[in-house]
Amino acid sequence: MKILSENACFGGVQGVYSHASQVCDCEMTFGLFLPQEAQQQPVPLLWYLSGLTCTHENAMTKAGAQAWAAEAGIAVIFPDTSPRGEGVADDAAYDLGQGAGFYLNATQEPWAAHYAMWDYIADELPELVGKEFAVDAGRQSITGHSMGGHGALTLAMGLPGRFRSVSAFSPITHPSQSEWGKKQLTAYLGPDQAGWARHDATLMMRESGFDGPMLIDTGTKDQFADLLMPEALAEAMAARRQQGVFRMQPGYDHSYFFVSSFIADHIAFHAEALHQ
Amino acid sequence: MKILSENACFGGVQGVYSHASQVCDCEMTFGLFLPQEAQQQPVPLLWYLSGLTCTHENAMTKAGAQAWAAEAGIAVIFPDTSPRGEGVADDAAYDLGQGAGFYLNATQEPWAAHYAMWDYIADELPELVGKEFAVDAGRQSITGHSMGGHGALTLAMGLPGRFRSVSAFSPITHPSQSEWGKKQLTAYLGPDQAGWARHDATLMMRESGFDGPMLIDTGTKDQFADLLMPEALAEAMAARRQQGVFRMQPGYDHSYFFVSSFIADHIAFHAEALHQ
Repeated sequence: MKILSENACFGGVQGVYSHASQVCDCEMTFGLFLPQEAQQQPVPLLWYLSGLTCTHENAMTKAGAQAWAAEAGIAVIFPDTSPRGEGVADDAAYDLGQGAGFYLNATQEPWAAHYAMWDYIADELPELVGKEFAVDAGRQSITGHSMGGHGALTLAMGLPGRFRSVSAFSPITHPSQSEWGKKQLTAYLGPDQAGWARHDATLMMRESGFDGPMLIDTGTKDQFADLLMPEALAEAMAARRQQGVFRMQPGYDHSYFFVSSFIADHIAFHAEALHQ
Repeated sequence: MKILSENACFGGVQGVYSHASQVCDCEMTFGLFLPQEAQQQPVPLLWYLSGLTCTHENAMTKAGAQAWAAEAGIAVIFPDTSPRGEGVADDAAYDLGQGAGFYLNATQEPWAAHYAMWDYIADELPELVGKEFAVDAGRQSITGHSMGGHGALTLAMGLPGRFRSVSAFSPITHPSQSEWGKKQLTAYLGPDQAGWARHDATLMMRESGFDGPMLIDTGTKDQFADLLMPEALAEAMAARRQQGVFRMQPGYDHSYFFVSSFIADHIAFHAEALHQ
């Protein structure tokens, strides 16, 4: 693992690191905020998964998470959204290939060689971070924005017992039925929709739900709402009697101005679960 | 109007009053909490509509609303749930007739003579209260529980501009499709479902929505959840991009222990809208 940068931040450290990923077969970069408490003892860890076109950097610099994470004594990790590099397959579209990994393991060419973001977030990166930093693997929660909200929801439901709480900002909720999803699931996983179900939060909610609290925020003026389909997840959560809070926030759009407006709520929500 | 009782309560007064209702053609009783501020000037008014089998008294004694209404400087009115008296039609079932007015104007016999709860809550009672007490008709909000949640939602959407905010505890959300609704709508309004639409919160949400904030709470262990159909309203709210918060509260059932656990949240929610 290489240290690319470390900056003092709200009494703790905001670092950027890279490492040779085995599952993605390329060098991967991530951001990690460690609060002051991590100098004494392992602290809980919140995963923040980013959306289409983002790297590890967008949320780290624009979401405003560190202030509240420092107050709550929680680490926050900002992974990249796909494998990267010259040898890694890509597409001219912004919503496929690099920057658009969709948090799954691709099985189709040309993607299968590097696109293993599920295994990267579920296994490889937590193992590395647990070894290198003072984080407590027994206390993890997860959040994300847009495609990253999709990732947070599907990882939370797909790894029962791993995360104590899950939240999402403007998540893609039903990719198997959305233009933000059908193209990508077909490209990465092939046309057989049976394999898509464990990468669709609405289908997973109908099937199993999440054993813990959930918090979902979407703006009423989200310009991509028809692609996100918040109504699909809202219906599935209520039909399952899933504990959770589903909010439609008046006037907000899809931007980081929305995320930063409510990140304090989300970190307080996760802190309550992580400090129990 | 007769004063049946007045008790000092959290610095204000909890009163119970009765009056000859013209629209219901019978004597009607209601509870009204006035905070201390009402001695100086008109205060905002929150309507609390109760559920099946309730009178004006249940929420007044069991919801614990007065503590928070006093803190917020808000009056709370607790109407009855149906016309009452020996000459008023009734049914042996708990969910039809007296105690089960469903907040509509019945058109069918034997109900049409007295069952005019829509007109009573929408017109007659606010006029009386505005004349007799220091409440500000320009600042009203509405909430309710179960059948009263249905009433709150349908009145809020059916009277645009009247209420600044609406909330509900465990509301009946889709009576035209539920066993808590089909029987009553048929009995009161007749079998033609076209007339049911303006008494079904989910259908009204699909049609028009509410021009203000909404807050809905339902318990994940609500024993009547299959009759309430929270998923129908959750889907409709998100599909409309209705500003609002939809919560499934872990472990809570349909009782007043649920209502009292979250009444503080609801009154704070309404206070924010009423004091703007």
